[in-house]
Amino acid sequence: MTDTLDLAARLRFVLVRTSHPGNIGSAARAIRTMGFERLDLVLPARFPDPDATALAAGADAVLDAAGIHRTLVEGLAGSNLALGLSARRRGVNLPEISPREAAAQALAAAARGEQVAMVFGNERTGLENEELAHCHAMVRIPSVDDFSSLNLSQAVQVMAYELRIAMLQDTPAPPPPMHDEPPADATQMEQFYEHLAQTLDDIDFHKGRTPTTIMLRLRKLFQRAQMDERELRMLHGILADAQRMAGLAGVKKG
Amino acid sequence: MTDTLDLAARLRFVLVRTSHPGNIGSAARAIRTMGFERLDLVLPARFPDPDATALAAGADAVLDAAGIHRTLVEGLAGSNLALGLSARRRGVNLPEISPREAAAQALAAAARGEQVAMVFGNERTGLENEELAHCHAMVRIPSVDDFSSLNLSQAVQVMAYELRIAMLQDTPAPPPPMHDEPPADATQMEQFYEHLAQTLDDIDFHKGRTPTTIMLRLRKLFQRAQMDERELRMLHGILADAQRMAGLAGVKKG
Repeated sequence: MTDTLDLAARLRFVLVRTSHPGNIGSAARAIRTMGFERLDLVLPARFPDPDATALAAGADAVLDAAGIHRTLVEGLAGSNLALGLSARRRGVNLPEISPREAAAQALAAAARGEQVAMVFGNERTGLENEELAHCHAMVRIPSVDDFSSLNLSQAVQVMAYELRIAMLQDTPAPPPPMHDEPPADATQMEQFYEHLAQTLDDIDFHKGRTPTTIMLRLRKLFQRAQMDERELRMLHGILADAQRMAGLAGVKKG
Repeated sequence: MTDTLDLAARLRFVLVRTSHPGNIGSAARAIRTMGFERLDLVLPARFPDPDATALAAGADAVLDAAGIHRTLVEGLAGSNLALGLSARRRGVNLPEISPREAAAQALAAAARGEQVAMVFGNERTGLENEELAHCHAMVRIPSVDDFSSLNLSQAVQVMAYELRIAMLQDTPAPPPPMHDEPPADATQMEQFYEHLAQTLDDIDFHKGRTPTTIMLRLRKLFQRAQMDERELRMLHGILADAQRMAGLAGVKKG
């Protein structure tokens, strides 16, 4: 299996005619959080720029290494597959695919050793028809019809996110344990339910209701919570204090 | 089948202690592009603000209708399921789920008629432990370990995107509800925690330990259980009896 880092290195994000340097910085941060490093800029209006650096929020290495190009052809040099992001639906004579499909195609190509470019247009105009003509497919993020335009760096984030998810699906990392402490085992839970049942008796909770129904409901509730040992100790402590109060009340009553 | 608009109306995005109004505007734009409208702000540093309006880029209706709250409890009022976005992996005693899993859970809940909140913390600090204690699960966007922090509005965009994708996919029949009775909402849960805290005081549980730490642990435990109203009534009943015993014990003691 190809290493995740190798795959990531075969993917580049190409921003075409970006107006606002802040968006370049935000895009750098977005791709960096998702494990990508390669940014290519075609005719950026202003770059380098303090706004880009500020919004990169530490992804300076991505900005420093960014390629700056005069033409999209130059920005796509060496790439085998170019996927252009676009909000527009009118006939572009290109297959329209979703970000998820694009991620699958991009990774399949990268796994074959190909270079892949994700291409993003100008903030206001998007990718022009001539620019889309350099792409192999058009990727549409399924926004709503009456408010369809994502911010440029948000579109980059969504695409980078889908690529990362697709890369992780081959090797999903196991989720970390929910608790710091060991989860309670069945024996410990039974001891807890016994303590709970005894306490309900002691505090005179039942008052003619069926203890078994009540205990069944309480079991389900606490089973769902999937408790750890510390939580169990805490609940035992609460029950013990309630029993102590019942004892005091009972002794004085009797 | 439930209409997509109905489902979207049951979802809210809650931003907690947002420092930069620009991020509020970007978040409004992000959710609007994905078909959502409801934004709730808990203690925003500055709002309304020209930066918010500028970055909303036309999603003014979302900003105009945004709820402004002094507490997270207020921001979650009426919600049955709260999912908190967090980059941190250390033991939070909450299940950790992916954005995709979160979207599936959120939509299943909305399809059952429940109100769902997606909760986002401060830009620098994320969601504090006490804030996560109001959530039922923690959502982690799978960023890389050495550069894990997404911009706030980017995290909102990713989550809104996954929700939109999930809504667009053939809305499968929602899984049967976990409960026969309505799920408890955030306000009811707060009342329960108040009753629980008072009872712990009454039965003299603390004995010098910090009540806030204990209550935080208990909150997480019971949040995980996602209780219904009948279970809540049962627990209130148990607490009332424990208090009664403490009262009897105390009266006789004094």
